[in-house]
Amino acid sequence: MLTDATQLLNSSPLFKGLPQDQLGKLAAIAVRRDLVKGEALFADGDPASGFFLVASGRIKVYKLSLEGKEQVLHLFGTGEVFGEVPVFAGGNYPAHAQAMEPGRVLFFGRNAVARLLRDEVGLALNMLAILSRRLRQFTRLIEDLSLKEVPGRLAAYLLLASERQNGADRVALDVSKGLLAGMLGTIPETLSRILNRMSQRNLIQVDGRQITLLDRDALIGLAEGEKL
Amino acid sequence: MLTDATQLLNSSPLFKGLPQDQLGKLAAIAVRRDLVKGEALFADGDPASGFFLVASGRIKVYKLSLEGKEQVLHLFGTGEVFGEVPVFAGGNYPAHAQAMEPGRVLFFGRNAVARLLRDEVGLALNMLAILSRRLRQFTRLIEDLSLKEVPGRLAAYLLLASERQNGADRVALDVSKGLLAGMLGTIPETLSRILNRMSQRNLIQVDGRQITLLDRDALIGLAEGEKL
Repeated sequence: MLTDATQLLNSSPLFKGLPQDQLGKLAAIAVRRDLVKGEALFADGDPASGFFLVASGRIKVYKLSLEGKEQVLHLFGTGEVFGEVPVFAGGNYPAHAQAMEPGRVLFFGRNAVARLLRDEVGLALNMLAILSRRLRQFTRLIEDLSLKEVPGRLAAYLLLASERQNGADRVALDVSKGLLAGMLGTIPETLSRILNRMSQRNLIQVDGRQITLLDRDALIGLAEGEKL
Repeated sequence: MLTDATQLLNSSPLFKGLPQDQLGKLAAIAVRRDLVKGEALFADGDPASGFFLVASGRIKVYKLSLEGKEQVLHLFGTGEVFGEVPVFAGGNYPAHAQAMEPGRVLFFGRNAVARLLRDEVGLALNMLAILSRRLRQFTRLIEDLSLKEVPGRLAAYLLLASERQNGADRVALDVSKGLLAGMLGTIPETLSRILNRMSQRNLIQVDGRQITLLDRDALIGLAEGEKL
């Protein structure tokens, strides 16, 4: 079981690449649980007492609407981890979790994880490294994916903002950069890069939250699907 | 300076939302450094002794080609953190870093950070929570961004693989799921979801690394830009 658990841990995004001894210590605090079809793992609002790693079968994570309608947020399969955010943050589970079929999970209790992280600062550092590295990769990918459509959406937003402000060339951003990024379907880092690129090409000039439209024709082109 | 540093820390993606006392403890180990234009912070291959948080000015992170040509990987500005991956992982900096203009950074030494994480397991848990929460958000965003184009690319890949295998309906995936996801411009989690969705709609049937093409017309439609 320990060896199996170690292999499983090493296949999961949260632990992949940890040194063998740290994988072993994690495996040693894991509690195996066999599941029957339909078995509940936790309910929305329960204190987050630990997170789960799927060994086999699929787990459905879902919310219930006021009318009792089920809204599936995610299905987790072998090697995937769920429940870790509220466990690390020390809050409640934000949804229900239930086994879709017979299966097996490993449970990592919050107190045991906290104790292990305290005793093994190397493990905390390694997990921070794994997560930061994935975040860097994801940021790059989002940037690649965003560069196709987000400049056009941003151009459309700026033209609309100008129209709303009586056609002024200088428009004030009335939302935070985080909110604007979300609206346009990207992240603030990528939005900043796109704003920089549009500035370098003299399409706009950015002064804090004031943006001056320098080349409306080019902005219209972008909004209509031309490449930046 | 401590208050300023605390505010700056709370504006950076790595530390945003930490409780005030933990921000204060981080601020207390930060070493302020004023930079002149062109000043080097570290060189490619140096042991990663600490990471940096930009207080003002911009930092260029770049590689040098064998011919000595500079390839800029990223510019970091106010509130952004860099160098944290090799510091957490305990390796070397993978590139050069230099100030583009006069500015200021806060330096967090690896040993001081490790000591703080050991003494304050709550800080380690909170940082893991911040990073895991961002990863979940990024995963969702990548999925949204991928759902438009990746099914088409995957369909094209499967049709091509079938052609290469003499038009067989049953094709063997000759690359790992991670590599295939990268090739198609997404992440393994999203690729799995797209494969599931294509199975549910009876376009394909998946048995491990064997994929059977059930509906070629629909796959051709997808590859030509129809929606899944």
